[in-house]
Amino acid sequence: MSERPYILITNDDGIQAPGLMALARALSEVADFTVVAPASEQSAVGHAITLSDPLRVSDYKGFSPQTAFMVDGTPADCVKIAIRSLLDREPDLVLSGINLGGNTGINTIYSGTVSAATEGSILGYTSLAVSLTTFTDPDFSYAARFTRALSLLVLEHGLPPGVFLNVNIPACSEEDVAGVMITRQGGALYREEFDRRHDPRGRVYYWLTGQEVEVEDDLAVDNGAVQKNYISITPLHFDLTRYDLQEELRSWNIHT
Amino acid sequence: MSERPYILITNDDGIQAPGLMALARALSEVADFTVVAPASEQSAVGHAITLSDPLRVSDYKGFSPQTAFMVDGTPADCVKIAIRSLLDREPDLVLSGINLGGNTGINTIYSGTVSAATEGSILGYTSLAVSLTTFTDPDFSYAARFTRALSLLVLEHGLPPGVFLNVNIPACSEEDVAGVMITRQGGALYREEFDRRHDPRGRVYYWLTGQEVEVEDDLAVDNGAVQKNYISITPLHFDLTRYDLQEELRSWNIHT
Repeated sequence: MSERPYILITNDDGIQAPGLMALARALSEVADFTVVAPASEQSAVGHAITLSDPLRVSDYKGFSPQTAFMVDGTPADCVKIAIRSLLDREPDLVLSGINLGGNTGINTIYSGTVSAATEGSILGYTSLAVSLTTFTDPDFSYAARFTRALSLLVLEHGLPPGVFLNVNIPACSEEDVAGVMITRQGGALYREEFDRRHDPRGRVYYWLTGQEVEVEDDLAVDNGAVQKNYISITPLHFDLTRYDLQEELRSWNIHT
Repeated sequence: MSERPYILITNDDGIQAPGLMALARALSEVADFTVVAPASEQSAVGHAITLSDPLRVSDYKGFSPQTAFMVDGTPADCVKIAIRSLLDREPDLVLSGINLGGNTGINTIYSGTVSAATEGSILGYTSLAVSLTTFTDPDFSYAARFTRALSLLVLEHGLPPGVFLNVNIPACSEEDVAGVMITRQGGALYREEFDRRHDPRGRVYYWLTGQEVEVEDDLAVDNGAVQKNYISITPLHFDLTRYDLQEELRSWNIHT
């Protein structure tokens, strides 16, 4: 790629999130970009899109001279409206992140960060989701530099249609990063429970809580790799078909 | 299965939706069940879960003598809280539907109906999502009878861990149903556009609209099958890993 690439940046933590700002700052040296991000935090929204309400879009000045828009919707909404209405040219890359907190294992399914990359891929664009695996004292500077380098590498190599990358960066110091692992999506990290309470008027409500269960001790798995301070890169797609079960189901001879 | 099976029923159209009522009525002859469904419509929520708000749960009397609970959350919330807190025994089956409107192709990704079955499967239960492919004049009676028969068949055969079924039933009359096809998830059915408007105070907002694009003319694909009046059954899973890309990515020698 001889010219500066043009990148659509989004996230699920909201347009003012430090992870997005760190990413934009790192990219500004090598790329042009437009930020189209949710106005407020949208964690665990999965691949939600907004059908029954209108989407409000406002200009956002925080990334000048690059343009930015704030959308009162989900990450998938942001990517859809960016591509269909807001951008005046096609992006070379859709970049979602850098999320505060890992998106590995089953969390991949719930993640708004991943959902934005899924949407980018559905719409036919090369897409990455990037997360930093901590909720406390985040330092996004190394993660942002790594993401910048990885983005250029992805643009150089390309990805097949319908494939996008889920990148999780361990929250250790740069010198402690053990390397890069190409992984598969792991299993559940939490055993959820619900905390049952009564409000002042006696009505029942529940809080979702989670107990961490043991992480898979396997560097081939996303959450196992980041736990050992490896950067985890998982190639994902959005075809959920379990092809190997089709013949078995056909043998059931299901009648109408 | 010698005893009556015990089924968790949910949906994304809300606990009062006719598709859920038709399903419950058909199942009551052969199974016991508990309904745990959203209080309001939750379409296109994807695999959203509620983290930052408490979940309210109310008893709902509409399925007596079977128990039912109304949850002010998403379909995935309903399944989680049902399994973890509300049910007093483990269900043999998690059944999501019958949805008003098809969930084929890319819509599989956005679907709250499918998301409930995904959650059932994540939690280790045999799960089905069922949709009727119409938005107008729905007659759920045949779809409910078919779903009852399919549920018993699934309970007899079982499904491997992590596999669930996405069932789409054409909205033709019973005698016009052409048969059952085991399919794969198809591609996009809509080419979305956004309709840009101004509110009375001059602020911009957008409505998501969609133009239908040509359905794949292929009986092996979910939306192609239902268009030809076949019942489409697609085996799905929630491991999004694109395994065949792992070696290619390893060959890039990505550095930290």
